[in-house]
Amino acid sequence: MIDLDRLYSDRAGKMRKSEIRELLKVTQDPEIISFAGGLPNPKSFPIKDLEGVIQIVLKHHGTIALQYGTTQGLRELREVIAERSVHDGMKDINPDNVIITSGSQQALDTVGKVFLNPGDMALVGLPTYLGGINAFRSYEANLTGIPVDKDGMRIDILQDTIKKLLKDEIQPKFIYVVPTFQNPAGVVMPESRRKQLIDIANEYDLVIVEDDPYGKLGFDISHIKPIKAFDDEGRVIYLSTFSKILSPGFRLAWAIASDKLARKMIICKQALDLCTNTFTQFIVNEFIRNGSLDLHIMKICEMYKPKRDIMVNAMEKYFPDNYICNKPKGGMFAWATLPEGIDTETMFLDAIKQKVAYVHGKAFHVDGGGGRSMRLNFSYASNEQIEEGMERLGNVIKKKLETRVVL
Amino acid sequence: MIDLDRLYSDRAGKMRKSEIRELLKVTQDPEIISFAGGLPNPKSFPIKDLEGVIQIVLKHHGTIALQYGTTQGLRELREVIAERSVHDGMKDINPDNVIITSGSQQALDTVGKVFLNPGDMALVGLPTYLGGINAFRSYEANLTGIPVDKDGMRIDILQDTIKKLLKDEIQPKFIYVVPTFQNPAGVVMPESRRKQLIDIANEYDLVIVEDDPYGKLGFDISHIKPIKAFDDEGRVIYLSTFSKILSPGFRLAWAIASDKLARKMIICKQALDLCTNTFTQFIVNEFIRNGSLDLHIMKICEMYKPKRDIMVNAMEKYFPDNYICNKPKGGMFAWATLPEGIDTETMFLDAIKQKVAYVHGKAFHVDGGGGRSMRLNFSYASNEQIEEGMERLGNVIKKKLETRVVL
Repeated sequence: MIDLDRLYSDRAGKMRKSEIRELLKVTQDPEIISFAGGLPNPKSFPIKDLEGVIQIVLKHHGTIALQYGTTQGLRELREVIAERSVHDGMKDINPDNVIITSGSQQALDTVGKVFLNPGDMALVGLPTYLGGINAFRSYEANLTGIPVDKDGMRIDILQDTIKKLLKDEIQPKFIYVVPTFQNPAGVVMPESRRKQLIDIANEYDLVIVEDDPYGKLGFDISHIKPIKAFDDEGRVIYLSTFSKILSPGFRLAWAIASDKLARKMIICKQALDLCTNTFTQFIVNEFIRNGSLDLHIMKICEMYKPKRDIMVNAMEKYFPDNYICNKPKGGMFAWATLPEGIDTETMFLDAIKQKVAYVHGKAFHVDGGGGRSMRLNFSYASNEQIEEGMERLGNVIKKKLETRVVL
Repeated sequence: MIDLDRLYSDRAGKMRKSEIRELLKVTQDPEIISFAGGLPNPKSFPIKDLEGVIQIVLKHHGTIALQYGTTQGLRELREVIAERSVHDGMKDINPDNVIITSGSQQALDTVGKVFLNPGDMALVGLPTYLGGINAFRSYEANLTGIPVDKDGMRIDILQDTIKKLLKDEIQPKFIYVVPTFQNPAGVVMPESRRKQLIDIANEYDLVIVEDDPYGKLGFDISHIKPIKAFDDEGRVIYLSTFSKILSPGFRLAWAIASDKLARKMIICKQALDLCTNTFTQFIVNEFIRNGSLDLHIMKICEMYKPKRDIMVNAMEKYFPDNYICNKPKGGMFAWATLPEGIDTETMFLDAIKQKVAYVHGKAFHVDGGGGRSMRLNFSYASNEQIEEGMERLGNVIKKKLETRVVL
């Protein structure tokens, strides 16, 4: 039989299964209340509205919507995204700066392909989004973690780290940051820190990858300008997606980059997939232009805000006293850190036995940290399930703490 | 401003625009009759049938079809693809061997990511599919070309080349082959040569990447077994797509691989895009299962066969005497080689002036050859356009030949 290991690339030899994807398989048991995935609530999907939009697309654009499109994406969709980006505070954005991708994950992969040689350094949050870690590691990158506090990535430590790396003649390639309702920590980077981050990127001539899937899902705060809005030198690649504000099944996201960088990313994307799904691009374009998207985002926020409240209140009710959780002001995740002596990775098996699931904190840490933390998704479960699941989880934690005392 | 070149990866520094994609931009002028692209005929798209299917999908599977799916793809779709593959002669194929990808281009990219280190060697046809060349080169591979004759890749030269490479201590990673109605040459590899190819892969312990987008589009020959059907050692990765038999806009294709290889490809795909468009997977699954796909394939063949005939007959009518073109028995392309003294790359500008387009042969050759050849797509243009366009092209060629004589 074939000896495959001999033929694999070095990068493929090192690739391991994604922990989250494996966890999600365990949580498919319908009796388990899952706070593990990052899934939108299926009840939010605007099926009726989409049905009408799809009829229009097939009737008026059928032969183009079913055909190959350009690698960069449907012009009309890029136009409306560019307009909305300018409205959000970004400067000098036109449709040529917008690239439609198959989910933000493809954009993250493209970033890795464009910037990372094996052994190259990139800077990420502690904690940070697991899909970013996986994408960059698939190009054999070294990732250095920068602690995240209640205001996002710590800029002082970032600067010290960059100085130290440069002193050791290591050139960091980019800073990867999820500044708004961060996955997993739920925190928001204030405007002052966003500006500091840009200053640092300018000073050390670095790229910033700003991943913003949740920016529109704010419950308690009004719009906060993206980091890209303060970028005068074309060094921020801004990523966002329709997965969290419409449908992940459409696999439609977008990247915004300066002219030269956008052209390089498009050339890279040509070899990746020729073009993104044309049909769903037409659907989403129509859905935005008839005003449905903005109404829909309001509906999602109205649906998720009480879920967030139920989860945070349940935490107070059922968790032991000395846990830490900053109430997230939007997004889809709460992040809890438990008392000393708890290992959320080993506790996961106890939780599964009690039919409740989360993602353990280590999965989001490139330095092996996060052992006492857990990410809790509040968008997917029903309100009743959240209450019930948090009670189950509280009991699992309390029992674990008791065992710890006994030992 | 940012100094990007300093930050790009080595592979990105080497990436160049795809020639075909750039050509296709030129040919968007509506007055140009284009034989350049590899596009299905838009009149073939079954818009009415799809409308019904989509209503069913939204009604019965809406909340799942709009949600994230598994990286490997919708189970029901993989099941029906596995069944059809067994019917086509492949052995021991089950849904776990099937991976749904965003077009075959993503499968080619995945193959590159899994097998190719910078400088690694892969073997491809002379000529071969440009998208394959681009995907493998994006991983900084070295590609060695094996001549293609009227029966596909020359097995004798393939064997000599492998022997020579191994003697020089160069391990080829895989053989990339488009055996049926080849893009661009239109030729079909007979069963005897398919078996020889498997024997060679077995003897030298190599992987074969069998790219089969056109296998179902046969006009004059009945079904020919895929190379994968003769694979007893799990060394063939079989690729096919719904782009040419239903809709390229859906970006849905599939790869079939042995258990171990499939698992590695899935891990790789997790970092690429998390999952493929769930919504269009549900649509295609429904379209296959209600019997529409097979009827549709018959309709496409009925539509394309006369187009092939008109093109080949027009070639006889309008081209100078001493050209070479084997009448393709299916697929979407004819391949013409013109008399000495013609350079199809420079002649392209003359053709564009006369409002007709093709892709020059060099684009499909990794060795700089193919200078007298051109690929002519017959699926996209209307019957009248094919006649008219071939007359224009014949005049361009004749004029070019006259100029040659004068010089």
